Order: sequence, then structure tokens, then C-alpha cells
Amino acid sequence: MNGAQSLIRTLVDSGVDVCFANPGTSEMHFVAALDTVPEMRGVLALFEGVVTGAADGYARIAGKPAATLLHLGPGLGNGLANLHNARRAYTPVVNVVGDHATYHKKYDAPLESDIEAVAGSLNGWVRTSGSTADVGADAAAAVAAAQDPPGRVATLILPADVSWGDGGAPVPPVPPRTPHAVAETTVKAVAELLRGGERVAVLAGGPACHEAGLRALSRIATATGAKPFLETFPARLERGAGLPEIERLGYLAEQAAYQLEGVQHVVIAGTKAPVSFFAYPGKPSELVPEGAQVHTLAEIGQDVVAALESLADQVAPDTEPVLQQAKRPELPTGPLTPQNWVEVIGALLPENAIISDEANTSGLLLPGATSGAPRHDVLTLTGGAIGQGLPVATGAAIAAPDRPVVALQSDGSALYTISALWTQARENLDVTTVLLNNRAYAILRMELQRVGAESSGPKANSLLDLSTPDMDFVRIAEGMGVPATRATTAEELAEQFRAALAEPGPHLIDAAVPSLL
Amino acid sequence: MNGAQSLIRTLVDSGVDVCFANPGTSEMHFVAALDTVPEMRGVLALFEGVVTGAADGYARIAGKPAATLLHLGPGLGNGLANLHNARRAYTPVVNVVGDHATYHKKYDAPLESDIEAVAGSLNGWVRTSGSTADVGADAAAAVAAAQDPPGRVATLILPADVSWGDGGAPVPPVPPRTPHAVAETTVKAVAELLRGGERVAVLAGGPACHEAGLRALSRIATATGAKPFLETFPARLERGAGLPEIERLGYLAEQAAYQLEGVQHVVIAGTKAPVSFFAYPGKPSELVPEGAQVHTLAEIGQDVVAALESLADQVAPDTEPVLQQAKRPELPTGPLTPQNWVEVIGALLPENAIISDEANTSGLLLPGATSGAPRHDVLTLTGGAIGQGLPVATGAAIAAPDRPVVALQSDGSALYTISALWTQARENLDVTTVLLNNRAYAILRMELQRVGAESSGPKANSLLDLSTPDMDFVRIAEGMGVPATRATTAEELAEQFRAALAEPGPHLIDAAVPSLL
Repeated sequence: MNGAQSLIRTLVDSGVDVCFANPGTSEMHFVAALDTVPEMRGVLALFEGVVTGAADGYARIAGKPAATLLHLGPGLGNGLANLHNARRAYTPVVNVVGDHATYHKKYDAPLESDIEAVAGSLNGWVRTSGSTADVGADAAAAVAAAQDPPGRVATLILPADVSWGDGGAPVPPVPPRTPHAVAETTVKAVAELLRGGERVAVLAGGPACHEAGLRALSRIATATGAKPFLETFPARLERGAGLPEIERLGYLAEQAAYQLEGVQHVVIAGTKAPVSFFAYPGKPSELVPEGAQVHTLAEIGQDVVAALESLADQVAPDTEPVLQQAKRPELPTGPLTPQNWVEVIGALLPENAIISDEANTSGLLLPGATSGAPRHDVLTLTGGAIGQGLPVATGAAIAAPDRPVVALQSDGSALYTISALWTQARENLDVTTVLLNNRAYAILRMELQRVGAESSGPKANSLLDLSTPDMDFVRIAEGMGVPATRATTAEELAEQFRAALAEPGPHLIDAAVPSLL
Repeated sequence: MNGAQSLIRTLVDSGVDVCFANPGTSEMHFVAALDTVPEMRGVLALFEGVVTGAADGYARIAGKPAATLLHLGPGLGNGLANLHNARRAYTPVVNVVGDHATYHKKYDAPLESDIEAVAGSLNGWVRTSGSTADVGADAAAAVAAAQDPPGRVATLILPADVSWGDGGAPVPPVPPRTPHAVAETTVKAVAELLRGGERVAVLAGGPACHEAGLRALSRIATATGAKPFLETFPARLERGAGLPEIERLGYLAEQAAYQLEGVQHVVIAGTKAPVSFFAYPGKPSELVPEGAQVHTLAEIGQDVVAALESLADQVAPDTEPVLQQAKRPELPTGPLTPQNWVEVIGALLPENAIISDEANTSGLLLPGATSGAPRHDVLTLTGGAIGQGLPVATGAAIAAPDRPVVALQSDGSALYTISALWTQARENLDVTTVLLNNRAYAILRMELQRVGAESSGPKANSLLDLSTPDMDFVRIAEGMGVPATRATTAEELAEQFRAALAEPGPHLIDAAVPSLL
């Protein structure tokens, strides 16, 4: 058994049986070894940002990591932006990055590159397999490291000769740690705070955005009057009819300030104290109101759900959570607007859907329109590196072949990883992409004002404009094998969205939604 | 004057007046400042790999750096693969990477990332501007560092508050060093070697691939019988009728071994001793024949052209270079083949063209068909990170608006940076892309065999196949605003190539050239 075979066998034994891949020469033995381990599914992408974003989306839904297969430093570099997003989502990912043969590195061949430096920038786990005999153990360690709470990006660098050498052996899985429990004294202290009569906000994140956490949060809020919030960009948010609807903290500092106004204490549960996404001249970075105290119920990686449940049992023993009633917007009519397109989605979102939300400014009104839709998951842009939406939708669809995936994708962000559409076509995935085509980097138009860049003129504005030339996403999608249509009215969007959902395989709707801003 | 304004003013004063940009919020003051320095041209791209590849192509033709504008670590990551290629080309590039405000970094906001680590992997020049007053000097130093022979990637990290702060001032240019001269004793020693009657090969690279170097090489070879070769992947190769035609060393180790067979001495001039692109089981990494001695005439970054000319004056004082006669292939007919498509290019290549060559396996027969075409430049894939061709063509066209640019682009490589087409349309660049659509990662099919991966089966082969679904590059190009046609015969390719060259602005021809392998 060569190194590559022992690697794949160990990955499969450890529960990692999907590999998103964009291989090169140094990964050819890994590719060849796929045929010897039938349980491993290889999914080809045409760009590494699709590979890594898909691995992120896969793990957010599957609850376990996928592997990636990347080609030396440049391949890892191409995948870095979506690994950054995965890192911010605490998504477990196992990168396998091929490298030159160990004895070849000293020659500084054209593709020689500092893979460890690039991987190291992710603050995750990095190891270079030094010998074929070690590959199995390294692979098992990588999977365990990726899953160690709260989850991280683990990168295993595999030199070509280590991969092709003989003497590999699979290694049994290393069970990942479970999350550390929160001390009972910590829970008690927060319970006392909540009983103290002062104005408290509870900001929860990570696994607290799933059903059990939401139910506990709702009970706590209902019984104590505390204001519950979820982090701005959850990795996976469960919502819809039958679940508590908890507000997310706003992206803009002004929104967050409004939400937290008058609060004397902020309890943090499974996330970080809120900070502004960017700094703005003369504005504070911290979003906790001045004078308010911050209390930590659960650090990131601790068992936040158990802590919230324990807290709820103390402060709200007889309180039931408030559940969102089923309600849908009426189907709207007329030319598409920032308001009516979200009503179409709210009116028609199918049962058990997964939304990959990279609608950015076009999606500001989305939460209100979908809160009473059938239960669904929302996967958000956790790290701010745009170009995540289509790959995450792709990976989510691989993880849940029986669930409809809806990608809400703004135009400016789409082009970074547009070839995700080809992988969706290749794998015949049930992904419906609604491409929100406002022909601009609309968020940057807003940010240009917000940073106080007053001297901006036509050259600056031209750099935020995507209408010269207009992109025709119908042709782009069709060129990649995805059937596509164009919608300019709410009626057309509704009809096309229904039709896309009804037919298996990927679809794209180029929706001419004007900018909100 | 704020920091951004002093930066742009200093760049312009230092000769850097084109900035390829994909900005975000942290770069908004830089974007706004473009309107205050009219000499700086901002060129928008939709993906950072296009930005960095265009900066590479620009500098290879302009002979001076462009700036890039990138958004924190993820933006730099997306640009990393083509910066790797630029590094291997010794292309001067000045990256400006926006970062969070200095006081905001400690909050670990979602886009916080280790920019220095990623930039450091390029072995170039990296500096973070610490204060607004320093920005001008930092910018001048970055331009000088980028141009310091042989050329490198310089990365200036610009925190948002340093950019928006007051107190910036432009700084005069720092003159870059000129290349170090080669010692006369070194030239004399090589001259003696060449007179010694043993079998010598001279392998030249870098600036030696331009006219003066080629003429000197040809004189040396003609007078002494030494075998002249050029490095496998020159950054910029001048060739065609009226110039000496010097063979490039082959990509495959077998080719190189054949070319160097029987050689007792290898003289290296402005490049490195040749090594195999990848390692292969049981095959040597070094391509210099066993027992042959390596002599260095000029290190990379030394004045290789002057050294070759001095050498020629010593060993070939009365010898003229052998110049390629003008000759073109006949226009072929019939269905497209790996042979006849290159004849079409050779028959019709316009005067003074620039070829961006990422044809990979499809282009193996290209040099023979174009050697006697009118004089032209060839820009090759220097670092092996595919996805360079379309961006490099884009940047070259910005640098030379009066020259026709021909991008020879294989299908597998095209999807990494396909949105370069949109920038070509936006800027109305005279780029004609011939998209060589063999529906496969053909080079990997070859490599899968060459690495000895014998156990490969249907799963492995599937990962190298791009035909499920077929990509329709006509639609993709049209979707990005580039007129496109499809050619299946040599006659169609000739007609469409002629028409594309005759009409201003970008065009794409989806050429159904079957795989050679």
C-alpha cells in the first residue's frame, strides 16, 4: 500500500469520505488511489476557491469534515479566501496539499513554494508528512485536529515521494475531543445576573444557533426579559416555522448600537464580544455600549448548548420557548424591487431547504420575509471574503442530496468562484441560484460614504460599477452547463423559482433586482 | 493630503501609473484618492487572480511595474497564484494590500488575517506602513524594491487609518539599482572553455531572451559550435523573422535529456541550472547530464546581456548572428488538429503581436509554426500555476494599446481567471483569445502515466475529464461582454482569427482542438 492509499483509507475510516479536488501532477498518486478505496467520493472543481468553499458548506451541513485536494502553494493560495471563511465559521476541513518530492525541493523547481507559511496563516493545524509510514497517523491526526472543538482547518502537506512510496498503512480514527463543559459556577453567576433586574442582552453564536440552543435562549429571554441576539454571521442558523426566531446582531455598527441601546450587561455565549466589521473614522470598534459589562457564559469551543440549557433550567424552569408561527408573504407583483424579491423567496421556500446566503446588500430584507417559512438552514458569509456563496451551496448539496439548496448570490461576489456552477452541473446537484444582479459592488458604494471618503469622484465610482459591460449570467450559467432564465418581475421570479425547484439538477435565475442603496 | 493620496502621488512620480484593483471597504480611501491624482489609471477586475496576473503581464511588456490593490489577506490569497508566477518571472509588481485600521486589529474582526505571512511566502519585499507620514517613503521604497534586479513582488500593507489619516506627503522616486556587471575574469574563463574544443551547451534566460541577448547567443553558437538553449519558460521571449531562433529547453525531462545529450559543459547565463519541473519515481531531478560540468556566466539579476555580448566579442568578433528568415505555414484545411491550429496562427499572426501562451499541451507544436512569423513577443507560464494566460494578456494589452495581443489558452486553465474577459471588454482591449478546448486536463492525463500511477481507473480518469458537462466558452465569453465564435475546422479558425484581429476590442474563439495525447 502506498502513502496515498493509506491516506485515503485512513480518511475514510475516520469518517471523511468526500474529497473536493483540483489536482495537479504532485497529486496524481492520490488521484490514482481513489480507485482503490471505493468509499471515497472525489468531486472535481475547476478552481480551488470552489474546492475549499464546498468543503466548508459540506461540513456545515454534514457535521463532519470533507477533505480537499490542492496543488502546492499556488493551489492552497487560490483556496485561501474560502478557507479564511471556514476558519471564521469554525468549520472542520482537512486539506491535503501535494508538494514536490522531498528530495526535489532543494532544486527550487518552478512550483516550489512555502506551503507551510500560507497554511500557517490560517491559525489551524499544519503538518508535513515526513515518510510514507507516517501518512496514516498524520491523516488520523489531521481529522482529529479539524474536529477538535470548536473546529478548524487542518492542512496535511503530502510530498509526492511520500505519497507514492511503499509501506503505508491505514491508522484507526483518533476520536475527537468533545467540547469542554462550562463550569456550573459560571452558569449560576449568569443566572443571578439575569435575576438581578438589570437590563441584559445575551449574544449567542456557534452551535447555539441550532434548535436546542435557540429553544434555551428563547426560554431565558421570555422568563427574564433579557434581550436575546445571535451573532451577525452564523455558520449555520436553523430557523423558520416551529423554531424560536431570534434576531441577529446587525452588520452595521449603527444597527448594533440601536439593538443594544440601554443594555447594562452583555452575556456572551459561544461567540465573541461584538466588534465592528470594519473601523470607521471617529467611530468605536467595540459594539458593547459604553459602561456595559461583558460576561462570558461559554467560550467558543465550550459546550454552549448545554450551558444555555442549564441556564434556562435555572431561570426559566417552567417557561416554554416562543416558537415562530408558520406564515408566508403574499406573492408580490410588479417589477423586481429589493422588497418584493425576498417576498417571493419567503412565499415559495420549500420544506427543509438550505439557504446559502451571499445576497449581501440585496438580502437586507430577507430575514423578515422568510422567518415564518418552513424550517430551513441558513449558511452565512462568516469571514467576509466574498465568493463563498456558490461553493458553499455546492458542498451543502453534496452533504444533503435530499434537500433543496437555494443560493442567494449577489453579482459582484459571484465572479470569484463562478465555476462552482460547472461542478453543480457535473454532479447534478439540486441547487437553485437566484443571482441578484444590481450591476454594482453596491456594498462598496455604501462603504465609500461610510468611511468618509468625501473626495471621491467619477474614477472612484467607476471602480464600483459592474455595468460596463453588463454581465449576462444566463449565458455564463448555460456555458457551464446550468440551465438559466432571467427574471425582471416578481411574477417571473416566482414562476422561474417554482420551476427550478420542481426540476432536479441545478438552475440559475438572473434576477434584475435594483440596488437598495 | 491623506495617506492614500500621498501613496498614489508617490507611485505616479515613481513611474507607476496603472493600478489593477479589486478593492473592498479597507481600500475605499485609496479608491477615493484616484480622483485626486489624474495620472493614475485604475483598472477594475472581478477577481484578484486577474489583478495580479494583469500586473505581471503589464510589467513584462511595459518594463516597469504596475500596482495592484487588494483587500486584506483573503484578497492577497486570491492573487497569490499569479504572484507566484510573477515571482518566477522576476516581474516587478507593487502590491498595495489594505488592512484594518491599526487600532482595530486587536479585535480580531472577521476579515482579520495574517497578511504578512501570506505575502512573506513570496520571498519578496514586505512592509506595513506604520503611519501616514511614512506612506510616501514606503511607497517609493516598494517601487525601488520591486525593480531591484532581477525584479520581485513588493507588498505594501496599508492599514485603513494610515490611509485615511492626514499628514501624508509624496516622496521623490528612489532610483532602482542597475544590474551588477559580470566580472571580466568570469567572461574570460567561459571564453576559454568555449575555445577548448569540448562539447558545450549555453543555457540563457531572463533578459537574454530579448533581441540583444539572442543575437549574442547566436554569434557565440555559430562561431564556437556550442549548443544554445533558452530556459523552458521565459518571462518574455522575443522571436520571429529577423531575430535568431534559439531552441527552448524542453518541459519534459526526456526532451531536455535528448537536447543536452553528450554535452560536457553547461554554461548558465541569467537563469538556473536546469531541473525537472516535477520529480518522477526513479528519475533524476537534475537535467544536466551526469558528469557534465556547470559553469555560471551570469547569475540571475546580473547583467547577462552585457556578459553575453562581451563573450561574443571575444569568441565571435567577426561572426554575425543567424537570423530567422520570414516564412509562414500554408493555411491548412480540414477539421482542427493539434498540428493545423498552430499553422493557422503561424500563417496569420499579425506584425508586432504579443502572445500570452497558456496553451499547455495543445501548444506543443506552436514554436515550429510561428518561428518565421513577423516579430512578436511570447509571454509564458513561468511558475506553473495555471490561470495566468488571460490575465497576462489583459495586462499586456493595457501596457501596449497599439499592439495586437493573442491569448492562446487551454480550457482547463481558463476557468481559474475567466473573468479577465470582462475586464478586457470593459477596457475595450485588443485581445484575441483562442480557447483550445480539448475537454480535459490533458496534461494530467499524461502526468498520471508519467508518475507511474498504474492503479488508476475510472475514478481517477473522471477527475481529469472536463466533458461532463462540456463548457461552452462562446456563451461564457458573451456573458462577460466579449464577442465569441466557435471553430471546428482550420478554415473556420482562420476566418474567425482574421476577423477578430481586424475588429477593435476583445474576441474569443472556442476552438475544438482535440487532445494531442
